[in-house]
This record gives sequence, C-alpha cells and structure tokens, in this order.
Amino acid sequence: MVLFQCDYTEGAHPKVLERLVATNMEQWSGYGEDDYCRSAADKIRKACGNESLAVHFLVGGTQTNMTVIDAALRSHQGVLCASTGHINVHETGAVESCGHKVLPLPSGDGKITAKQVEEAYLGHINDEAHEHIVQPKMVYISNPTELGTIYSKAELKALYEVCNKYGLYLFLDGARLGYGLVAPDNDLTLQDIAENTDVFYIGGTKVGALFGEAVVMRNESLKADFRYIMKQKGGMLAKGRLLGVQFDALFTDNLYFDISAHAVNLAERLRAAFEQKGYEFVAPNRTNQIFVKVPDAHLEKLKGEFGYSYDHRVDETHSVVRFCTSWSTLESNVDALIGAIEGLK
Amino acid sequence: MVLFQCDYTEGAHPKVLERLVATNMEQWSGYGEDDYCRSAADKIRKACGNESLAVHFLVGGTQTNMTVIDAALRSHQGVLCASTGHINVHETGAVESCGHKVLPLPSGDGKITAKQVEEAYLGHINDEAHEHIVQPKMVYISNPTELGTIYSKAELKALYEVCNKYGLYLFLDGARLGYGLVAPDNDLTLQDIAENTDVFYIGGTKVGALFGEAVVMRNESLKADFRYIMKQKGGMLAKGRLLGVQFDALFTDNLYFDISAHAVNLAERLRAAFEQKGYEFVAPNRTNQIFVKVPDAHLEKLKGEFGYSYDHRVDETHSVVRFCTSWSTLESNVDALIGAIEGLK
Amino acid sequence: MVLFQCDYTEGAHPKVLERLVATNMEQWSGYGEDDYCRSAADKIRKACGNESLAVHFLVGGTQTNMTVIDAALRSHQGVLCASTGHINVHETGAVESCGHKVLPLPSGDGKITAKQVEEAYLGHINDEAHEHIVQPKMVYISNPTELGTIYSKAELKALYEVCNKYGLYLFLDGARLGYGLVAPDNDLTLQDIAENTDVFYIGGTKVGALFGEAVVMRNESLKADFRYIMKQKGGMLAKGRLLGVQFDALFTDNLYFDISAHAVNLAERLRAAFEQKGYEFVAPNRTNQIFVKVPDAHLEKLKGEFGYSYDHRVDETHSVVRFCTSWSTLESNVDALIGAIEGLK
Amino acid sequence: MVLFQCDYTEGAHPKVLERLVATNMEQWSGYGEDDYCRSAADKIRKACGNESLAVHFLVGGTQTNMTVIDAALRSHQGVLCASTGHINVHETGAVESCGHKVLPLPSGDGKITAKQVEEAYLGHINDEAHEHIVQPKMVYISNPTELGTIYSKAELKALYEVCNKYGLYLFLDGARLGYGLVAPDNDLTLQDIAENTDVFYIGGTKVGALFGEAVVMRNESLKADFRYIMKQKGGMLAKGRLLGVQFDALFTDNLYFDISAHAVNLAERLRAAFEQKGYEFVAPNRTNQIFVKVPDAHLEKLKGEFGYSYDHRVDETHSVVRFCTSWSTLESNVDALIGAIEGLK
Repeated sequence: MVLFQCDYTEGAHPKVLERLVATNMEQWSGYGEDDYCRSAADKIRKACGNESLAVHFLVGGTQTNMTVIDAALRSHQGVLCASTGHINVHETGAVESCGHKVLPLPSGDGKITAKQVEEAYLGHINDEAHEHIVQPKMVYISNPTELGTIYSKAELKALYEVCNKYGLYLFLDGARLGYGLVAPDNDLTLQDIAENTDVFYIGGTKVGALFGEAVVMRNESLKADFRYIMKQKGGMLAKGRLLGVQFDALFTDNLYFDISAHAVNLAERLRAAFEQKGYEFVAPNRTNQIFVKVPDAHLEKLKGEFGYSYDHRVDETHSVVRFCTSWSTLESNVDALIGAIEGLK
Repeated sequence: MVLFQCDYTEGAHPKVLERLVATNMEQWSGYGEDDYCRSAADKIRKACGNESLAVHFLVGGTQTNMTVIDAALRSHQGVLCASTGHINVHETGAVESCGHKVLPLPSGDGKITAKQVEEAYLGHINDEAHEHIVQPKMVYISNPTELGTIYSKAELKALYEVCNKYGLYLFLDGARLGYGLVAPDNDLTLQDIAENTDVFYIGGTKVGALFGEAVVMRNESLKADFRYIMKQKGGMLAKGRLLGVQFDALFTDNLYFDISAHAVNLAERLRAAFEQKGYEFVAPNRTNQIFVKVPDAHLEKLKGEFGYSYDHRVDETHSVVRFCTSWSTLESNVDALIGAIEGLK
Repeated sequence: MVLFQCDYTEGAHPKVLERLVATNMEQWSGYGEDDYCRSAADKIRKACGNESLAVHFLVGGTQTNMTVIDAALRSHQGVLCASTGHINVHETGAVESCGHKVLPLPSGDGKITAKQVEEAYLGHINDEAHEHIVQPKMVYISNPTELGTIYSKAELKALYEVCNKYGLYLFLDGARLGYGLVAPDNDLTLQDIAENTDVFYIGGTKVGALFGEAVVMRNESLKADFRYIMKQKGGMLAKGRLLGVQFDALFTDNLYFDISAHAVNLAERLRAAFEQKGYEFVAPNRTNQIFVKVPDAHLEKLKGEFGYSYDHRVDETHSVVRFCTSWSTLESNVDALIGAIEGLK
Repeated sequence: MVLFQCDYTEGAHPKVLERLVATNMEQWSGYGEDDYCRSAADKIRKACGNESLAVHFLVGGTQTNMTVIDAALRSHQGVLCASTGHINVHETGAVESCGHKVLPLPSGDGKITAKQVEEAYLGHINDEAHEHIVQPKMVYISNPTELGTIYSKAELKALYEVCNKYGLYLFLDGARLGYGLVAPDNDLTLQDIAENTDVFYIGGTKVGALFGEAVVMRNESLKADFRYIMKQKGGMLAKGRLLGVQFDALFTDNLYFDISAHAVNLAERLRAAFEQKGYEFVAPNRTNQIFVKVPDAHLEKLKGEFGYSYDHRVDETHSVVRFCTSWSTLESNVDALIGAIEGLK
C-alpha cells in the first residue's frame, strides 16, 4: 500500500535527519537558546531579506496558530479567515479554547479577498451594536490554502493594504509554504511574504522536517513576550535545538525549496494523468495537493493499493478525494499510481 | 420621541416594582438563599408542572447563556445554533470566551430543524477526522427567535428527540418567552417546554422585570454545582432577593402571561397597519417583534418621532427595520405610530 | 433575628429607590447609553476631580473584577494581590476562568506593601526562567480590604509609584469604598484614589444601591474597547439606566458619604462594646466590618437573635466572627446587640 | 564547559535514535494511529500490568499537564498541588490559561500528604461560602518531585485512598519517572503507580527520548474524548509515529530503567563528593537531581567549567544550586566535576 493521503507520512529528509544524528550527543541549553536555533533564525532572516525579523520555532501547526493568535488578540477580538481555514475547521476549536472567535468568510477556493476583509471590517464598525459583536482584529490566510491554491503577489499586497488601513494584523499560515513558493504559477517570494504580512510561519512538518514550524514576525507589537506565550501553550520544546538543527539544515543549500520542487513536479505529473482520464479538479492549483472528482467505481479499484484522503461525496457515483505528494514521494510510486489510473475502466 | 426599538426601554411593571418597594427594608441572606427566591422557584416549578426542576436566577441574557453553556460543555465541545442565534452574533463572543465554539446552522427565519441537527451530528461523527473538529454536544434555540418566530410543539418535540438520540443537550433561550407563549399561533405550553428541553430560561428583563432570567433545569447531569459556575461568571447577585421578589410577582396571578399578551395584542395592531401599507415582513410572526421592509423615504419621515432599530439595507431605496412592543408599550403610542404610517405618502 | 453578617441584607437606600420609582416608566435606550448614566458619570468625574476619567457601570463585584482584569492583561500576565484578596479566595476562580493567574502575596491584615510588590516584580524579572513563570502586570488591592483595614495616602502613593516604575497597573477594588473614605483614621480622598490608581471602582451594592459598581479609569491604555469586554463578560446591563439612576442619586447631595458615615458610626459603637467586653480584634480597623475573637459560649447565646458571619476557629473555645454594619443598619438593632453583649457572662 | 544544569542537554539515547533512523522512510498514517504507537502502548500496558489502560503520547510536559488537567476538570474546579509543583510555578500559567485555578499546599520537600489533601477538601466543603471558592477536584503530584524527592508506596496509597474517598482525581507527573523508580530508596513499581493513580505519565524527554511523554489512564471517566482535547491543545503530533517509535524502543529490553539507573548511579557519586566536602542538601533524595548549598566562592571557581542551575540565595556567601545527571551523563564528566570539587578550597 502506497500512501498519498497526506504530506506527512514519512519522517525527515535524509539531510535533516543526518544533522540530528550528527549533533545528537552535543550538550546545549534548552528552550531554543542554543547556537543551532540562532543560526537557523539568522538563515531565515537572510532568506526573508530582513534582519530585524523575530524568529521562533514551535512544534506543530495547530499549536503555532493558537499561540500566534492568542498572543495578538485581546478577549473581545476575533480572527477573520476563509470558511475552509484550518483554524475554523480542523483544530478542534483551539482558537476558541483561547477565548477568541473565528470569523469565517465564504470561500470556494480556500482564499479570501481584500474586498471581503474590508466589507467585514466596515460591516462591523458601522453596526450600531458593534460592541455586542466580536471585533475583527486579525486576518488569517493560508498559503497554499487548505485546498492547495495560492495567493498572487497582487492579492497578498491588496490584503495587507486593507489590513494596514484598518489596523488588522495579517497572519499567513505557511504549513505548506515551500510547495506554494515553487509552484509554476507562483509569483511570490519569501521576501514578499515577509514584507506583506505581520507574522507568518514556514512549515517544516510537511516539508522535510520530523516536525517544526518557524514563526517569523515583522510587526513590533507582536514581538513582545512571545516566548512566554509559547511556553504557556505548551509550545516551547525542552530540546529546542532539535528545531534549530532541522531548520538550519532546511535553509542550507536551498534544501527547503529543492525538496518542495520535487513534490510539486510529481504532483504535476499526477495532475496530468488525472486530466487525461477526464477527472475534474476542485479548486485547481499547481501545488502538492490535488482535490479531484473521481468515480466511486475507480476509487474502489485503487483503494487496496493507494491511500488517498476522502473529502466528500459529490453525487451517488462520484466523490472528491485528495492525493498529496511531498518531499518524500518516490517517483516509482507516482509511476505506479499513474499506471493504475490509466488502466482504470 | 417614542421608542419602539426594543423591548427594554422602561423599568419594571408596576406590580413588580411595588413588591420591590414593599420588601426593600427587609433583611435577607444574600446570593439567592432567601424566601422570595424559594417562593418564586416553587411557583415556576408549579407553572412548569414538575417539582423536581432546578430553578436558578441570573441577571441578564448573555450571562445566562454563557453560564449554562459553560456549565454543560467540556473543552472540545461546541453548541449548534441558528446562524442568527444571539450567542453567535450579539454576545461579543461570550461563549467563545469560555472556550467553546459556536457551530452555526443556516437559518432564514431564526429557527433550526431536527433534520439539520441530525445531519450536523452525523456529519461530525462520520468524518474520519472528527477528533480534529469541535464535537457538537448542545443545541441552542431561542423561542421566540431573534427574528420573532416561534417553534411549534411538533418542531420542539422533534428537536428534543434527535438530541436525546445522540446525547446532545437541548437549551432554549427564553429571553422573550412570554411573548411566544401568548402568540395567537402558538401551541406550546410552559409545561411542554419544560418537558422537551434539558434546560431553558424564562426571560424577565424583557417581560416585566427590571432585570432577571430564571433558568429551569430538568436534566440531572446539568444540575450539579451550577451555583459555583454562576458565581464564577459573575452571575450570582449579592442581593439575590431582588430576583426572587420580581419573579415571585411575575408568577403571581398570571401576571407574566397577561403582560405578555398586552405586548402581543399591540404588535398585532401594528402589523395590520404595516400590512395595510403594503410593507413586507421578514420572517413573518405573531410575537412582539416586527421585522419589516420599509421605503427609506418613509423611515426618514418617521425617525424624528418614533424610534425603531435599523437592521439592514435591502436595496437602494428600502431597508429592514425592527419595531418592538412590550409589556410597557402604551396603546396611545401605538395609535400614534399607526396614524403616522397611514399618513405616509 | 437581626442580621449583622454582611452589608447587603437590605435593598436600596430610600432616596435611591425613590429615584428608581420616579423614573420607572421613562423610556431610555439600553446598555448605559442614557442621560442618567451620563449624568452619574459626570458627577463621579467631578467628585474625583478629573474630567477625563472614563466611567462605566457594572452590576456586581466579581463581574467587575474579572472584567477589569481581563481587559488589562495579556494571556501570560497575572495579578498580584494579598493572599486574602477577594479575587484570590471568594470568586470561584473568576480571574482564572479568564485565563489569568492570581499571584498572592502574604498578608496578615489584608493589605500589601510597595516593598512586597517591588520584590515580587524583581524576583520575577531576575529569574533566569522568567519566561516559564506568569508575568506580574497588575496589582489588585481592596480599600477597605476584605478585613476592613484601609490604606493610608502614603501607602497608596508608594504602591502607585512602584507600579509606575515597573509598568504595572494598579487596580483598587472599592466594593466598600464609602466605608473607608469616612473612617475616622482615613486620610485618603476620592481624588487621591483617582490620582493614584490606573483603575478603581466605587461600590454601590454594599453602599446604598440595589446593585452596581462604578468603574473609574484613568489610564488611557485601559480605556479602549472596555464596553466590548463588559458585554462579553455578561456585565452590560440591558436597562443600564438602572445603574445610572442609582449612582446619580448616590452622588447627589453627598448621599454616598453620608450613608457611609452612618454605618461607620454604628460600627464604632459596636467596637467599643466589644472592647469593653475584652474581645480582641483581628486586623483592627475603623470601617464597617469588625472581625472579632469571641468565646464560643457567647456565640451560642447570641446566635438565635443576631446573625454574624463565621470566619474561623481560633482554639477549642474561641472563634473569629464578623459583624458588619451598613447604610441600612438600624440604631435600635445596634443598641440591642450591645445590650446582649453587655449581658453575656 | 560541561553541562549539569538539567537533564535534557543531549538528544536521544543512541538506541532510540537508531530506531528513528531505521524507520524514517516508512510510510505511516498520522496522529498516533500507526503500528509503533500501538506497539509502544501495548508494551507500556504490559509494564504497568493492566491491559485496560488507555495510553496516549504527547510531546512535552507542560502540554501534557494542561491537557490532562483540562480534560478532567469543569470550569469551577481546581487542582491541589505542592506549592513547588511544576504547574504552579514553571508553566507560565498554562493551567490557568485553560481556566482552572491551581490550589497550592505548603511543601518543604516537594511532596504533599494525604492529610493535607483531606484537610483542604474538608476545609472547602465545610466552608459556608464554598460555592464562592474554587472546588478541589484533582490532586497533582510529581514523582520524583521538582526537588528530586520521591513518594513511598505507603504515601502514594494513602493519597489515593483520600482521593477516592472524596471523589478527587489523582494525577502523577512522571516527567522524571525513571529516575524515581530506580532510586536506591524507592519501593514503588510502575504497577503500583498504575494502580494508585487515576492518570499519570511516563516522561521521555528527560529519560532517553528526543521528546515525548506517555500518558497512562486508568480512570474510565477520564478516557472519553481525550484525543479531541490533545488535538485542541496542540498536542497531537502529526507524525505521531515518532513518539511510538521512541517509546517502543524505551520499553524494549528494559532500556528505560537501565538508562535511568545510569543517571542515578552517577548522581550517587556526585552526592558523596558533595557530602564529603561538607555541603548540605536541600530536600535530600537519591534520584538524579541534587539541590545543594554551596559557598559562592566555590561556585565562582566552578562556573567556567561546569554548568549548574542557580536556585536561590541562602545568605551573603551561600547559594543553593542544582546539579543533574541523566541517561546521557558521561562518567568522565562526573569524574572531572568530583575532582574539581575535591580541589576547591
């Protein structure tokens, strides 16, 4: 059985693992105050083209989202996001458990627009009873989104402009950031993202690390005391050096981007095979996730051999499922899947 | 200027106030442990036809909603409600501030159905990733709803049946309960409500009291330690006797229902005048709230003399506004408003 | 049975009640946006000698404490207070329910000192692991304290100086403020308090009102969006005018202070009788609360006729109990209690 | 510079790391639903002598404490612990951030007694105002404690008996469990702990793993929906297999206990050298932590070469510091430290 259901089925990229092994018996202070964390942070700042960025390392995505959002918001403030946003649907209410309402905006493709944000903000502030309503104070977007789509540079700039206009924080969840930055149709750089958000993170868990997310903060008002809140939310790893070592490896010799490109190239091949077969895509994109409408009869034949993730039923005979590639996907497995698809009748 | 914008523009019904004045210098223990609270609770139990109900008095609606919901739910559990539900839109995230996600269901008329609840529950439990999603554990409904509509006995019974089937609590917000129970098209009694919910409350603030909501609990598992949580949420009034005295008065000689009928009768007259004028109703109902689509030109002429509450813009020349009557509405003011409407051109 | 167990056994002072009755059928907008709230706030600002103060009205003390504290603190910040502080012991964890740790400092008399605050702050900041420890950000004091003692002007100034030095908020709980300000040994004015705190409140519940606490804020950074948080915590009374009317009456013709003096004068008489009898005082003070060590044999004789509040056992034959006077205490009842005490053998 | 300041300065035990490397490219489902997690849980159940235990894997200690405690308590309930308890002092208020008050009991040696728990419980329940006070519902202990001391079998049984008598949960934090179980003066087995607690955890972070804590639950009422709450608190690792692989290795061939014994043996040698030098111990114990009172002049000479953790100042010329050993401590480093100490004048 070959798993295509998600992008975290293997451990770490060999070069990352190698560094963990090589440094295993070194002695370091805990909680991220070691040379590897310092070095990794420096490399990330350099890659982002801004030496004054604050960089912190956390373990996982839900933890990162709740920590950043709780650090930013006061009690009565909420966070706008796409209705499909990870914080809205797949984190068991982590944001609400910190006391904050998630304010979903309708979205078909996982993205939201500057116009939607502006309307939501103005709708709030112009409501006579606005003190009775949660105040929007942050905008959460994912890039790539939960549906694999990406923001263009123009879209991100427009969002950030609206956020600045109304005093909202813009937070970009980059759990799969690598796969977005190397997509053939992407025009955003890491620098663009650092310049057009208040805070974002670079996902390691899904892009080559055993685990780990690197939070990058540009907005000064978010920087204060962030480590206290990391600790409070259970996100300050005792052996913080594990995160430093991994991100240091990922940001050495372009590794983060090269392994992302591997995943995207294989996804392109899969996508072509699906297209050839006449399957339709949901939220078409060119990153590592493919949401595709497949006859149930075909799924039945694939399911013993290939793992995919079931999304939803379309009609009596069709379903939408997700296939993912990742840095660890073997070309031979993609060949096998393409072969199997071509052979379906 | 005559205010029709809401149903809490005056103080208390004279008979309620009279009792407060008469008992003012009596000495009583605090926190609801006085004879008036005991007596009021007994009268409410009797009116509900069930002597084993637990009755608690709180000060206001938001406080009551957050206290009941927080008392019932564990961290990972959420509460289903209509998208228009008061807890979803007009409590500044009070439920989320207690750590719980509000799970809105689409609703055009303020109501939700047993079928919607069942689908939401099954959708959750059948999702492979259900542990990553907030677990629905309570259903919150309002009767009358925020749009003035009411549940029929059959609808409430169907909801409660589904809740029981899946282990969900059913909680009915009765901030305007009186106005629903006396509506011409209502077929629910107080006893029906007590039998077909796990917990509900009888609103005093909008129905004759200075303030106060009487929580009525039938489900044993909700009763334990409720007073601790009342205190924690700031809802245990030091001079609890004020709540006891008021509810005792309201549940003496049918007062609660008689004054509700007064409001509903006046609303019927207003509604007839609006209909006569050709205005259309949003979520038609026969309780004390009227949501009506009015030409902006007409509003312009009314607004110096009559207070209403602005709801939303329909098109370039029309808006939806709300007119409310209450126990305190003067017939002469209704006459004046009707006259003004008839005179509009 | 005459109750001396607390200072909220009766309703409202007749002059306050009279105003509620007189204004009962007036129509006003809700949520504190009425002329009475505006007038009361103006009178309070004037009494405090500062026109730029923000004044908000809430219903009860626990609610006020949790709302002010939650409005002020970020997630990782806590509030220093005496170990006997109301927020630490008698609010069922309301502050913790908002996510904040209460940081108790040892106190024998209900008070804390500038030196204790400074040591706590420096102890925190100088701890290598301070990011793993809740950060002190606010100091909560009560005046009078839970034991009836009061702060001198010099003590309050010293506390505020330390708070300013280290960026801590100083919050004074004035649930019984009137009884402190008129104590024979008091040297603090309302103006002094307004000048030497960031936020404080003037208690109504225990000093002449049916209920209500008036929050007074001087620190600009606390003012923003406070009404949102009042609403979220269930503290924004629908008929806010009830609070405005009451505080307007209390701050007319010196009423608040005159009725406080009534209570303190009677407490002085009781205290003299206790002293005469040879009883010892816990945390000696000259406000309206008397904590006194009494032989159990005496308590046994008093308890059918006079209500007191049991505090704790001292030894096998003595207990500490509390007697309170208030604005509503009848001189004749005090005479009776003194007579009973004198007659004890 | 050789670090003795804590027990998490290195990575993982070579046998643990080896297994991570060997399984790195295997494909597994996420979130702990893999064969390694299942196998590790089985081995732990077997070691605990109870096949019906629930076993869950989390990443770190603070996260584990907050997740377990939040899963167990309702809003108004708190957790009793030693004043030195990790949750009380070193988790930046994580428990309070979930809404629960930590209820500290005085402790000189890091332990609390059954008698203290009973008194605290009875003190609460017998207080007339108990509804105004946080309700004790859980007892948190650490074994070894934060001071390195351990509970005897009799002490643990007495605690559990009191907990059962009053309906309290007993939760044992085993972040350093291995070092306690192999202490020369220990009489507790893993089975004893499993039988005499409702829930406990086996620490991996400090005992051979890169990270990871294994929660073991016996009480049925704690088991329900625990994974939801793990996810909500950010504690459900995407690549859960990393935890399974590590604990599987630790519970193979007695590894967990053997490497614990290594640490304790070296601590015994250090302790003997300290004693020889005339240093006094704080909270004497025979586990891997040594709290020792040292002349500042000596510390001055050690500090360039040996890392220790500064605890507190005793007097003008003495301080208490902590030296730790761990599974990874090199005998040669211990020799060097002993030599240095012997050479101090």
